[in-house]
Amino acid sequence: MQVTPTAFDADAARRGAALRGRIRSGEIDRHTSGLADDLVQGNLVVLPAAEAHEFLLYCQRNPRPCPLIAVGEAGEYGLPTLGTDIDLRTDLPRYRVWRNGELVDEPTEVGELWRDDLVAFVIGCSFSFEWAMRSEGIAVRHIDEGRNVPMYRTSIATHAAGSFGGPLVVSMRPLIAADAIRAVQITARFPAVHGAPVHLGDPAQIGIADLGRPDYGDAVTVRPGELPVFWACGVTPQAALQRARPAFCITHAPGSMLITDLLNHQLASN
Amino acid sequence: MQVTPTAFDADAARRGAALRGRIRSGEIDRHTSGLADDLVQGNLVVLPAAEAHEFLLYCQRNPRPCPLIAVGEAGEYGLPTLGTDIDLRTDLPRYRVWRNGELVDEPTEVGELWRDDLVAFVIGCSFSFEWAMRSEGIAVRHIDEGRNVPMYRTSIATHAAGSFGGPLVVSMRPLIAADAIRAVQITARFPAVHGAPVHLGDPAQIGIADLGRPDYGDAVTVRPGELPVFWACGVTPQAALQRARPAFCITHAPGSMLITDLLNHQLASN
Repeated sequence: MQVTPTAFDADAARRGAALRGRIRSGEIDRHTSGLADDLVQGNLVVLPAAEAHEFLLYCQRNPRPCPLIAVGEAGEYGLPTLGTDIDLRTDLPRYRVWRNGELVDEPTEVGELWRDDLVAFVIGCSFSFEWAMRSEGIAVRHIDEGRNVPMYRTSIATHAAGSFGGPLVVSMRPLIAADAIRAVQITARFPAVHGAPVHLGDPAQIGIADLGRPDYGDAVTVRPGELPVFWACGVTPQAALQRARPAFCITHAPGSMLITDLLNHQLASN
Repeated sequence: MQVTPTAFDADAARRGAALRGRIRSGEIDRHTSGLADDLVQGNLVVLPAAEAHEFLLYCQRNPRPCPLIAVGEAGEYGLPTLGTDIDLRTDLPRYRVWRNGELVDEPTEVGELWRDDLVAFVIGCSFSFEWAMRSEGIAVRHIDEGRNVPMYRTSIATHAAGSFGGPLVVSMRPLIAADAIRAVQITARFPAVHGAPVHLGDPAQIGIADLGRPDYGDAVTVRPGELPVFWACGVTPQAALQRARPAFCITHAPGSMLITDLLNHQLASN
């Protein structure tokens, strides 16, 4: 999926540019959750062209966990379909730099590391569908509890592409049945940010032994009568990257996303 | 909801008219399940004008169990928005005639009972959303087991209108989680035939003590790992009618529906 808005909303573009300016200047160097209101935020993956084709193929084969909202040309650090004057080298609060699969640095800009052969991938983020759920009155537990969303490796394998592969990682939000049904409808409208859930109910059916012990993020309260509802998660491609161990890779630091000029509702499929 | 197609599909209109002709002639006098392929079928309720306003209000207040696809003028027995040359007095295989809430007859036509003050209501039927589910490869258990769908009175009250009221009745189809999620999306597109489920998972949460003992229809197999998924059911208005005990009422006999010229996909909301 390539998001191709006909035009940016003027107010959204102004707000997006202002936030990226504050990040670029170093004023904001922490996670962006709650910072950008109704603006689309994205996960960043930057790979050398040599690995880029395989990673693109991996995303193409696994659109639920890896919904691409933009892919740059080799060397390109602006992404005009996502916003005006985006500079991927400076516009995220914090980055992670990986060499041979090992985390080697967490800088606040990557201008000195940029190369003409780097390809940027921006992957949709669950912030957008959580915004859609909350806009329709469905509470999101980890937000209400001030925690990171709980994420779990599952027994479901992704479709491999070259060295990229591994398990599907899911995020979980507990909901009463009526809200779970409504959340399916709401999130199904947003295929660019993981779409409808992949599972609900019994965690063991997808290889999750204990909801209280997530593989990433924090555990949250699951109340009596609630169903755990599971969505494909953007940590899946990160896990695939750690497994593939490319010689060089830049990603966003967890929670420090790219803020775009797109409005969440512009990602709706209908 | 009033279904207002811009035009009938010519082949659908030919098939609808042919089936109604066979019913009108007495050749078909039994249930219409499986008879009309992709044509919309409807539940019939006919009430004197004196009760019609309250019943219309009841349907308006309870669109999930009582999705109206057409309402006639007083005395009108044709419904041009549903098909060409429909005659509600003869075009259902079998009717039920009620007086003061008691079933008094099950004739194959009601021409001699028709009056100038009778108002016909046609309510969408789950045959349409089951067609949509099966078209997308989701098996429907009671069809595969050759049974009637299991239906249950719930602890959820409908919104009363005058003498019409009572519990929401639901139908149940067991599905694995992935199919349940898909079925929510598929059936949500069909608000004219009950729309998305009203509940899934624990039956006790909506007052159902034992899935093996439905209040209407037949029990079906629920396999390990499946979730029971519950939809609002067109038996709800029938239960409300039996409770309200209007002096006179005509309905279809169970399963002997009105076959229209509409195609199921014409009921899709998007």
